[in-house]
Amino acid sequence: MSEAYSVDARNRVRRRPQRAAYDRASVYAILDAGLMCHVGYVLDGQPFVTPTAYWRHGDRIFWHGSAASRMIESVIGANVCVTVTFLDGLVLARSQFHHSIDYRSVMLFGRCELIEDLSEKKAAMDAFLERLYPGRLNHARPATERELKTISIAAMTIDQASAKVRVAGVVDEPEDYALPVWAGTIPVRQHLGTPTADKGIGSDTPLPPEISAYAPNTILDAVLKANAKA
Amino acid sequence: MSEAYSVDARNRVRRRPQRAAYDRASVYAILDAGLMCHVGYVLDGQPFVTPTAYWRHGDRIFWHGSAASRMIESVIGANVCVTVTFLDGLVLARSQFHHSIDYRSVMLFGRCELIEDLSEKKAAMDAFLERLYPGRLNHARPATERELKTISIAAMTIDQASAKVRVAGVVDEPEDYALPVWAGTIPVRQHLGTPTADKGIGSDTPLPPEISAYAPNTILDAVLKANAKA
Repeated sequence: MSEAYSVDARNRVRRRPQRAAYDRASVYAILDAGLMCHVGYVLDGQPFVTPTAYWRHGDRIFWHGSAASRMIESVIGANVCVTVTFLDGLVLARSQFHHSIDYRSVMLFGRCELIEDLSEKKAAMDAFLERLYPGRLNHARPATERELKTISIAAMTIDQASAKVRVAGVVDEPEDYALPVWAGTIPVRQHLGTPTADKGIGSDTPLPPEISAYAPNTILDAVLKANAKA
Repeated sequence: MSEAYSVDARNRVRRRPQRAAYDRASVYAILDAGLMCHVGYVLDGQPFVTPTAYWRHGDRIFWHGSAASRMIESVIGANVCVTVTFLDGLVLARSQFHHSIDYRSVMLFGRCELIEDLSEKKAAMDAFLERLYPGRLNHARPATERELKTISIAAMTIDQASAKVRVAGVVDEPEDYALPVWAGTIPVRQHLGTPTADKGIGSDTPLPPEISAYAPNTILDAVLKANAKA
């Protein structure tokens, strides 16, 4: 589980290598806290970056799209780069130059394959829903064959990866600490708000247990991380 | 300002075109609410997606990195794709298949140039700091020439763009609305936390006026949007 990915020019962090990690535990910790990734691919020499929701199983990550999606078409059989990023804090330094941000990010490299078999597709989509809302599979109406045929699922085996994390807060030049300038960090967190029921759902209908962890003011990545551990 | 970008195969939204917009007002509205982007570029045929902070001035967006950054080196003179994404809500439908997310995103296409002139670099960095913390320039120690020389700034003229927004909430199949399954939306927002002063800053030191908009529980993109308008 926790062995390191191989490191070469493709995934080596050149800038501030002290912030980098290449072991699976560090990479998975960031992946398992996230929902949205940015998929990078090349079409006729032009790079594209498409945001999408993903989920992880072992050393593979998955995402889906329409069966007609240009993105899915382009990534299958290709080398792609997938990046997941959290903005964790705004850092105000005493010097203009050292204003910064705290963050967590991973870059993943690997090849994509298409999940074609209908039962594999169903299993992958089930895993995605369970990862987000454990137990939801037992309540919501299952997908039909016709529905599953309208989507494509890409699976990328993580061949190489790097995690890069800054949690340093303020780092000023030694001589600047004496300046009479406020410096500090403003945390940034993705919070959940109050669930809004769809039209036709009575206001007396209780919220289902599968979203009990998504309580108002909870931090989204804490919920996702706890789900991944369970 | 509000005229539309040209549309061709590169920036046309093929999936769910009803969610797409190509006018500058729609694209700028999303850009001006954001801080982090994902820059896509190609090196020896391999795509890379690097997260970074950006700022906009007119039809150009800027970001910076170390003078030795592989990313900056690779984007200068090249066609790149820059994507900005907000996750706005988790959508639980009555059917498994129609679980979704609400989001706002933009994809930008264009060529990058390097800001080399030292006074232009300083002006760009000043604009970035002012965009985030209006008035901060008057308090924090200005950057030295030596500091400015250690960074590179990339400027991309937005040649083409597309915005894609989903705010639909739950969309189920007509026959599924009768199912006894809770459906609804859980909002997701990037909130600011309580500022933490750096070591050496007395707890009686008042917070500076330039971060008064960043009050605890404020939504980050609302602050950024208001700053951009001012």
